[in-house]
Amino acid sequence: MITKETIRDWFVELQGNICDALEKTDGKGKFISDPWERAGGGGGVSRVITDGNIIEKGGVNFSAVFGKTPEPVLKTMNLPVGDHPDFYATGISIVLHPVNPMVPIIHMNTRYFEMSNGIWWFGGGIDLTPHYVNEEDAKTFHVHMKAVCDKHHPSYYPAFKKWADDYFFLKHRNETRGVGGIFFDSLKAENGFTKESRFDFVKDVGSAFAPIYTSFMTKNSALPYTEKEKHWQALRRGRYVEFNLVWDRGTKFGLDTDGRTESILMSLPPQAQWVYNYQPPAGSAEQKTLSLLKKEINWAG
Amino acid sequence: MITKETIRDWFVELQGNICDALEKTDGKGKFISDPWERAGGGGGVSRVITDGNIIEKGGVNFSAVFGKTPEPVLKTMNLPVGDHPDFYATGISIVLHPVNPMVPIIHMNTRYFEMSNGIWWFGGGIDLTPHYVNEEDAKTFHVHMKAVCDKHHPSYYPAFKKWADDYFFLKHRNETRGVGGIFFDSLKAENGFTKESRFDFVKDVGSAFAPIYTSFMTKNSALPYTEKEKHWQALRRGRYVEFNLVWDRGTKFGLDTDGRTESILMSLPPQAQWVYNYQPPAGSAEQKTLSLLKKEINWAG
Repeated sequence: MITKETIRDWFVELQGNICDALEKTDGKGKFISDPWERAGGGGGVSRVITDGNIIEKGGVNFSAVFGKTPEPVLKTMNLPVGDHPDFYATGISIVLHPVNPMVPIIHMNTRYFEMSNGIWWFGGGIDLTPHYVNEEDAKTFHVHMKAVCDKHHPSYYPAFKKWADDYFFLKHRNETRGVGGIFFDSLKAENGFTKESRFDFVKDVGSAFAPIYTSFMTKNSALPYTEKEKHWQALRRGRYVEFNLVWDRGTKFGLDTDGRTESILMSLPPQAQWVYNYQPPAGSAEQKTLSLLKKEINWAG
Repeated sequence: MITKETIRDWFVELQGNICDALEKTDGKGKFISDPWERAGGGGGVSRVITDGNIIEKGGVNFSAVFGKTPEPVLKTMNLPVGDHPDFYATGISIVLHPVNPMVPIIHMNTRYFEMSNGIWWFGGGIDLTPHYVNEEDAKTFHVHMKAVCDKHHPSYYPAFKKWADDYFFLKHRNETRGVGGIFFDSLKAENGFTKESRFDFVKDVGSAFAPIYTSFMTKNSALPYTEKEKHWQALRRGRYVEFNLVWDRGTKFGLDTDGRTESILMSLPPQAQWVYNYQPPAGSAEQKTLSLLKKEINWAG
């Protein structure tokens, strides 16, 4: 029997393991631990890292919140708002902004939601946002994500890769946030999937995070760069801000429903820049990156 | 008879006058002119200034767009989406980010909207966002805004000042964007107001912009500052980004309806920073500023 406590405890353990692995690879940055409580019930622990050797700013957040289901949630689900069922939501949310523009930004989220009316589901995803798209790295990342998915069901990777392409998309720029990854939501017991098999998948996604990202940290953090690459990184961080504040449904929902602002906005970069109508020179590495921020690239090959 | 062409031409003239006044006071920065066309009809001219003596980044945008009324607009107005009336919208939109943290950020917008079904209205506003709230400057600004309003109707300033307090508000931070100003929308012919009297008011708001802002440019741009004040400015610019991308209805509407992205996002600062859970020291000028970012301060005295 997989209870919400089982899932919550596994997420807490995952948070600790990921922070340990990131600290070890970074070699300098240490996560501070910032516990918080939610007025309506529950709370979380934000773990935040700043000014590491490799990670400039990032967070690995855990939360487990509960209480009366907020009306906007009921509306989203087309449930009567007068029923007032209880909800319980727990998850891990990670965003890491590296110092070196050659190291990609990464995001991961795993989450579980249940209500007193018996409804439950899992959701989550991992996506990679390189400042400079390195096609080998993008391939490595997707091959890894595909292996995690294929272990559970052959339909997972194609469906969840497409979902990421569609979700991590800046409509107003007509560009993807990065090279995508996987995104999934509302994973229930249906079509032969059980709560146990869904949870096993989510655990494998969570466990995949540290090995894949620390490998990019190690591989790319010694690559040389100049002010030119730092400037481009700042512009790409601006795009990351645009995605998170304009399009990310989790961010919008959190800010709309009195979520903990500092934990939600830990995803924002240490700094960002905007230049009116910036166009990278034809044939430049920056221009090449833009040309690869498209949906439906078959990175896993 | 006040036609849409009359209003458009006045806005074009205003754009030129404001750019001239800002260039003259800045002494170095020059506005480039970037004309653009809208696929559905009309277009605009974005005028953008960068790296001036006083203005680091800013835009003075004119647009006049027309065509079939977009469905989201009809929905907002509770009109049947099947009717497909034509619309015409013209306006000026300004945001200026100064170099010196002691000079406030300013925003102004004046706009006119009409539809082929006879519906029309004016809207607009000016609001001031100091990085450091100087109470004398805030008072000067509001006294000026009140005088512009009072010339037209005693109800204007109290109503439009409250509207600005409510509109330029970051709910997720529980703080106002700055010291407010005036905001108004849907000004129609009603309660004794005519199209002429509404347009006269909008013209006076537009004409008030350059004198008031150039006076702050001149008065404050020689004030000393250090890295500490630049850092705080970058954090406040981060808040400006948060407001514009999360809460500003015009920005959201534009990005949602395939508006011209670069013109809409000219409002973003040249750079911004985010620090997890930053709290200024008790008794500091930064802390005092936060304490003054509240609604319902009677700045006009």
